[in-house]
Amino acid sequence: MPYIDAFNHFFPKPFFDALVETPAGKKDIGKRVRGIPALYDLDIRNRIVDGFGKYDYSQVLCLGMPAIDRLFTPDVAPAMTRLGNDGLAEICAKDPKRYPGWAASLAMNVPDEACKEVERATKMGACAIQLHTNVDGAPLDEARFWPIFEAIEKSGKPILLHPIRTREMTDYRTEDKSKYEICSVIGWPFETGACLARLVFSGIIDKHPGLRIITHHLGGIIPYFEGRVGHSWDQLGARTSDEDYGAILKRLKKRPFDYFKDFYGDTALAGAKGPTICGIGFFGVDHVLFASDCPFDPEKGTMYPRLSIGVIEELDMPKADKEKIQYKNAVAMFGLKI
Amino acid sequence: MPYIDAFNHFFPKPFFDALVETPAGKKDIGKRVRGIPALYDLDIRNRIVDGFGKYDYSQVLCLGMPAIDRLFTPDVAPAMTRLGNDGLAEICAKDPKRYPGWAASLAMNVPDEACKEVERATKMGACAIQLHTNVDGAPLDEARFWPIFEAIEKSGKPILLHPIRTREMTDYRTEDKSKYEICSVIGWPFETGACLARLVFSGIIDKHPGLRIITHHLGGIIPYFEGRVGHSWDQLGARTSDEDYGAILKRLKKRPFDYFKDFYGDTALAGAKGPTICGIGFFGVDHVLFASDCPFDPEKGTMYPRLSIGVIEELDMPKADKEKIQYKNAVAMFGLKI
Repeated sequence: MPYIDAFNHFFPKPFFDALVETPAGKKDIGKRVRGIPALYDLDIRNRIVDGFGKYDYSQVLCLGMPAIDRLFTPDVAPAMTRLGNDGLAEICAKDPKRYPGWAASLAMNVPDEACKEVERATKMGACAIQLHTNVDGAPLDEARFWPIFEAIEKSGKPILLHPIRTREMTDYRTEDKSKYEICSVIGWPFETGACLARLVFSGIIDKHPGLRIITHHLGGIIPYFEGRVGHSWDQLGARTSDEDYGAILKRLKKRPFDYFKDFYGDTALAGAKGPTICGIGFFGVDHVLFASDCPFDPEKGTMYPRLSIGVIEELDMPKADKEKIQYKNAVAMFGLKI
Repeated sequence: MPYIDAFNHFFPKPFFDALVETPAGKKDIGKRVRGIPALYDLDIRNRIVDGFGKYDYSQVLCLGMPAIDRLFTPDVAPAMTRLGNDGLAEICAKDPKRYPGWAASLAMNVPDEACKEVERATKMGACAIQLHTNVDGAPLDEARFWPIFEAIEKSGKPILLHPIRTREMTDYRTEDKSKYEICSVIGWPFETGACLARLVFSGIIDKHPGLRIITHHLGGIIPYFEGRVGHSWDQLGARTSDEDYGAILKRLKKRPFDYFKDFYGDTALAGAKGPTICGIGFFGVDHVLFASDCPFDPEKGTMYPRLSIGVIEELDMPKADKEKIQYKNAVAMFGLKI
């Protein structure tokens, strides 16, 4: 103890009120978010946090899904972003015990404004920047996003990386979108891995070695497939014949595997102990932060914090290591004062 | 000991000779497979197997990638399938010590012929049926494939399920196919999970409870995300608004999670110990079979058997449990005589 929940979701009231008035909000988005009151009702959220008082539990807040740039066109996205970030800043300023920090969102579909918002939000006290694994379907290694990574590196704040489906995201069948919700359940963790691979192989990480990227869901697909991540990407180009991927391996400053080991992960695995052990084994205790993904669970907010704390409590590891995962890595990376 | 390698790949010479003469074979497929001699040269393959003689190591053979129905049009696919299966049968008949069994491939793009081949191959001694996770992009729950599952259930043979990219498979960006080989490295394990989900939610597993499905790479993405597989699919329909997925949950005979636990997995994780422990924890020792994915490794055949055996040797578990993984589950499921 204490537990700092590094990655969970909340819509401040001014942002939520504007969100549900948009065309998307009036359609299915509004229906979905309204079904989870702890996502936008601060009193309900406070009670969830207080329910874990015996663990000295607090939350670093960031906006919920979908991403700003999925919801809003470029003409309104920057203003909505500021509205959301201002709301999170206000909640945390008023109640630092429950909410010791917040992560800023960016309107990635307006890169210039995104760069400015990194600076503005950092001055306002944002402790991290939340990015999604693609920008309305566009991968993060597109040239227009590189200045944003430069701005984030300059800010010194870590990135909280959240998966999101692309417009085309299906279980690979464009004619049959998101059948059985395969995409959100298991496509998202793949998308996290795909995003990390693009950050590595495009050279963004080499260009900005100061970036610290905390992946939701303990690295997505990467840790369980560390064998393929290592040995298959060591052979990049050997199994394709029309692109010279060997040149990429030569250009990289280290083995592909080592880049993936240098990322960070949070423990939001819905209370699965074996996978948590597996993921900690991959990243190491200095690169794992406790998180719950509250309130996206069947109990609408209480289950994932309870199960996620339960897993950490059960872990057989030295107290000093466990404390890093519980809160010390978060305090250090986010620059929190607790 | 002994070790029976349940899932690895070989092209018998008559099949290989025909393969490299096809249009695909003359283009990049031929170039790729020629680069891995242990995939088609039996002398080289024998030496690899013999190199692990101290472990009493043998291989259950099946054809290599890509799938028959990706390579061949319906007019020639059934004949090529028989050529491949006959070749595997011959190798195993001549050398049962090295190769105690073989898995039949099917021309899934000609479903009638696929059903006949299940019967023919079983009579010839096939110990399993190799399926791929999609048929040239089409998911396995399409109506035309259901009779094949009926035929396989009737045969009593287990399915070896291999991932394969769909025609559209990219890291979700159709305009930028297979960038950085993201698809084969980490998209395949997602594809395995997507295929299993379709088998469950379509009702195929409920209709054919006798099917035993052994997933390559220890369940793909499923075990590491057992938390999401459980809790997210318990909420199927709660986060979508345009389809009544709740009706699917009511129709299923058990909780979605329990279907996934009932599948089997092989240990082909490229020598990663932590993930192997994680996967065995998910499936249980009665549902895991040793496998290496030979010869698709950086040493072209020797590395993955060596690393995969090494991981099993290091596992801290009762001898009787380890023997199940090493060979007893394979003997029982494949009906081998060793």
